[in-house]
Amino acid sequence: MRVLGIDPGITRCGIGVVDVDAMRRTTLVHVEVARSDQKIATHFRLKTIADAIDRVIAQFQPEVVAIERVFAQENLQSVTTTMQVMGAAMVCAARAGLPLAIHTPSEVKAAVTGNGVANKSQVQAMVARVLGLAKAPKPADAADALAIAICHAWRGTGLQGATADGAVNVSLSGGVEARKKLTPAQEQWAQALAESRRKGAVDPRANRGR
Amino acid sequence: MRVLGIDPGITRCGIGVVDVDAMRRTTLVHVEVARSDQKIATHFRLKTIADAIDRVIAQFQPEVVAIERVFAQENLQSVTTTMQVMGAAMVCAARAGLPLAIHTPSEVKAAVTGNGVANKSQVQAMVARVLGLAKAPKPADAADALAIAICHAWRGTGLQGATADGAVNVSLSGGVEARKKLTPAQEQWAQALAESRRKGAVDPRANRGR
Repeated sequence: MRVLGIDPGITRCGIGVVDVDAMRRTTLVHVEVARSDQKIATHFRLKTIADAIDRVIAQFQPEVVAIERVFAQENLQSVTTTMQVMGAAMVCAARAGLPLAIHTPSEVKAAVTGNGVANKSQVQAMVARVLGLAKAPKPADAADALAIAICHAWRGTGLQGATADGAVNVSLSGGVEARKKLTPAQEQWAQALAESRRKGAVDPRANRGR
Repeated sequence: MRVLGIDPGITRCGIGVVDVDAMRRTTLVHVEVARSDQKIATHFRLKTIADAIDRVIAQFQPEVVAIERVFAQENLQSVTTTMQVMGAAMVCAARAGLPLAIHTPSEVKAAVTGNGVANKSQVQAMVARVLGLAKAPKPADAADALAIAICHAWRGTGLQGATADGAVNVSLSGGVEARKKLTPAQEQWAQALAESRRKGAVDPRANRGR
């Protein structure tokens, strides 16, 4: 399964693509940070980010898009623009007909490092190890986007609905009855995941040392 | 000047287009309410709204887009999705190369009714009078979108930057030095507005009785 991870931001938006196989081996496909000029109007900045996401989707053809959830308790203006970036990114996913998953920052940290309150450098170090990279992708937004993609690749939760025609809140970890309207690749992956869970073989950190 | 007003919402998004002349006479061009099905995933709902805005822009060719600012003190989930709709709508404006203005609800109410804390029915009644309609457009989202468009047509403030190449926070009411990079129609309108202000002829309620 190929996952596009997005760390939404208007000044720097991390965009990362990873492949995961049924054994949860994860490989880097692409990573970039879309930037927008603070001197131009917000809506043109949003377009710059959306255009970059559209290009990555067109070029790398992910099967699912995962975005980090933004919380409102931070700086209000920053949250406003970040939610607007989320909205723009979500339309990119929808126009490509892709399912979308949303993960909280603590879910992402827990999935990648085993610690829901891990700091930035811990997340970056684990992203590098998981993907077999000599060092962490920079800037942090790049590593964060990959962490979100890895989180989704491993957990498979958080899906907001797999199709445009009525599926809601399906969850790959929620059992067969919830796995409706997935693509063949997603279905295959979900079955493999369920199988490996039955065998007790799934440890989110299993392929860290590669 | 032709203004597209958007009252952002994911279940119902008001989309209204008005023309305003240099004497501030305002006429209805188009109004609709884009709806999205609550049963489908949020990103597909956002796409439905964005597609509707794109269609209205393509069909009616507005020169500027005005959106109502969303505040964060309301219901959090509702604000999140409304900000996402704003983000999606802002990308629609940017992809059409249009300037974008943001107005607060109280600015809109004050511009249309003369009262910044007017209630919904007062706003609806004034929108109908201003546009010479026998009765207010329904649902309220339609009237609200027209109120936003009228507000921008009359005030001309709130512009977030007129071009994609560096203009920031231009204001039609901010004097000649701020009126950079506007379209010829906007420039003409701004000059007419400044002229009528010099003559003391501008009253936001001047053409209410039509």
